[in-house]
Amino acid sequence: MRFSEEELLRRIRRLSGSSEEIERGIGDDGCVLRLKEGRYVLSQDMLVEGIDFERGLFSFEDVGMRAVYVNVSDILCMGAEPMYFLMSIAIPKDLSYREIGRFLRGIGMASKEFGLKLLGGDLSSSRRGLVVDICMVGVLVTEHYLGRDRAKAEDLIAVTGMLGQASFALNLFKAGERIGGLGRFVERLRRPRPPYEVWKELVKSGIPNAMIDISDGLLLDLQRLLRESGKGAKIFFENIPIPAPLLERKMEVLALTGGDDYELLFTFPKERLPLFEGLRERFPLHIIGEVTESGGLRMFKGGRPIKVERKGWDHFLWRRWTRRRM
Amino acid sequence: MRFSEEELLRRIRRLSGSSEEIERGIGDDGCVLRLKEGRYVLSQDMLVEGIDFERGLFSFEDVGMRAVYVNVSDILCMGAEPMYFLMSIAIPKDLSYREIGRFLRGIGMASKEFGLKLLGGDLSSSRRGLVVDICMVGVLVTEHYLGRDRAKAEDLIAVTGMLGQASFALNLFKAGERIGGLGRFVERLRRPRPPYEVWKELVKSGIPNAMIDISDGLLLDLQRLLRESGKGAKIFFENIPIPAPLLERKMEVLALTGGDDYELLFTFPKERLPLFEGLRERFPLHIIGEVTESGGLRMFKGGRPIKVERKGWDHFLWRRWTRRRM
Repeated sequence: MRFSEEELLRRIRRLSGSSEEIERGIGDDGCVLRLKEGRYVLSQDMLVEGIDFERGLFSFEDVGMRAVYVNVSDILCMGAEPMYFLMSIAIPKDLSYREIGRFLRGIGMASKEFGLKLLGGDLSSSRRGLVVDICMVGVLVTEHYLGRDRAKAEDLIAVTGMLGQASFALNLFKAGERIGGLGRFVERLRRPRPPYEVWKELVKSGIPNAMIDISDGLLLDLQRLLRESGKGAKIFFENIPIPAPLLERKMEVLALTGGDDYELLFTFPKERLPLFEGLRERFPLHIIGEVTESGGLRMFKGGRPIKVERKGWDHFLWRRWTRRRM
Repeated sequence: MRFSEEELLRRIRRLSGSSEEIERGIGDDGCVLRLKEGRYVLSQDMLVEGIDFERGLFSFEDVGMRAVYVNVSDILCMGAEPMYFLMSIAIPKDLSYREIGRFLRGIGMASKEFGLKLLGGDLSSSRRGLVVDICMVGVLVTEHYLGRDRAKAEDLIAVTGMLGQASFALNLFKAGERIGGLGRFVERLRRPRPPYEVWKELVKSGIPNAMIDISDGLLLDLQRLLRESGKGAKIFFENIPIPAPLLERKMEVLALTGGDDYELLFTFPKERLPLFEGLRERFPLHIIGEVTESGGLRMFKGGRPIKVERKGWDHFLWRRWTRRRM
């Protein structure tokens, strides 16, 4: 890398922007926001090379986009519209100027999709591996925040999209298989764009009570939501949206525990079912079960209970697992 | 490391807390803050092992405290009182539970000093090296924000504390020298606590116009401030607070370019000199020069101009330098 921090900063500053709220943006020790009275959401998510992504499998554009997308996903889950972000990057010495440019282009593309403005952050180097950490700021647009602790007994449980696509693509890649005809699976793996359009309609209609994004597998993330809400659930295997190629190869388990879906998992009261059904005509939405007062997480298949193992991704147990998060 | 992410999360959650503003704290995809109308400051600073610190030279408590301190410093520079933080940590596999515990204790100690509450963040692993990135939120307590672009021509330029202590200690360490009797130099290196008490008085009296913290050396940080303000400056070598041991060893340059001082550099109008003088009786404060309308940064020694080289720390040029940031 033969360019200076100042040059890089100039490129990064193009990601900033102005708004009535931004009194002092990027270029100082901190930004100053002039905020109206209201409820604001902050979240922070980090991507580490060798853990969350590998070169070769991901382009640097992909990594940049993913860094923004995973944070947008968190903000949406709380019922907020993403607005601003701060970003810390540690750049390893083996990255070329062109590669850094691609990474920043990915950040720029994804942040533009959601109209996000960069407020500041930190630029550092690393001995090995790219690290990017984003803190995102959103403004609440729902009457009550969503999140993990809002599930009520008898709520229906629903998911957006199809599950297991990203981890299926990852498995094929790792097995060295051809992935012809699986373009959308690969796309979900590389650029897990949050389902913003359906989220927008869901919150506009006031449908969800609780919401979480599926980053570490349906079962693990559902258990997190249930634990925070102090509730149990019944889910029905047949109702889980599993893509045909997974069924054909008997890799259904990836839809349950594969992770990296970045689809939305949410609960909603039965009286909002008509509103939900209205959206189902336009968006892929599936009801997979129901919240219960207690009883933990139970899964049924063909009317009979089947064992639910606590699977999914836990950073500090991964050596015992067959699957690693990228 | 033989413990789970959940155990670690329980420890981390002890750093959180409640306040009227926190509607939903740690434990969800994001936090929800109920904010009054006002001006808020956000900053983000990352520490990377092997770049910003080395094991051996720093204890894990030191690293935790430093991660908080550098962010507090940024918030203070804008004229804001630090309130909350979010934190992402990437933990390498070779860290023991005890070491992680020490690191978290450092985070806890420093955040307690300033009454900071943890709002959330991300926990990840890394292939190599500890990474900690903090985003801090503060509330503006000055009439106008401070920061880098507020310097006016004819403002006086002042600094808190003594300069070059941290980098002097680092140099002795690296040279393998004994550091007996230099406890406070080592303390400034290891735990660069921002000069909060004098900052508090400075802002209460409405003294500063512009402010920046000296993290990369007086000259480099002063140049950053001048550039953002579109001004020049004259500074007087004799007025720079250089500790006696640096003068004795002819290592004065460390007070100019050594970095890691985390003292405050600020400008203020001459009419506030009486207020400033009042504080000088209680705090180490030095006037080192004056802002000029133009002319760049000029330094004088014995009444004669001396050459000011652009020195200090630039992450992407460090291989060409004799000094590396830790």
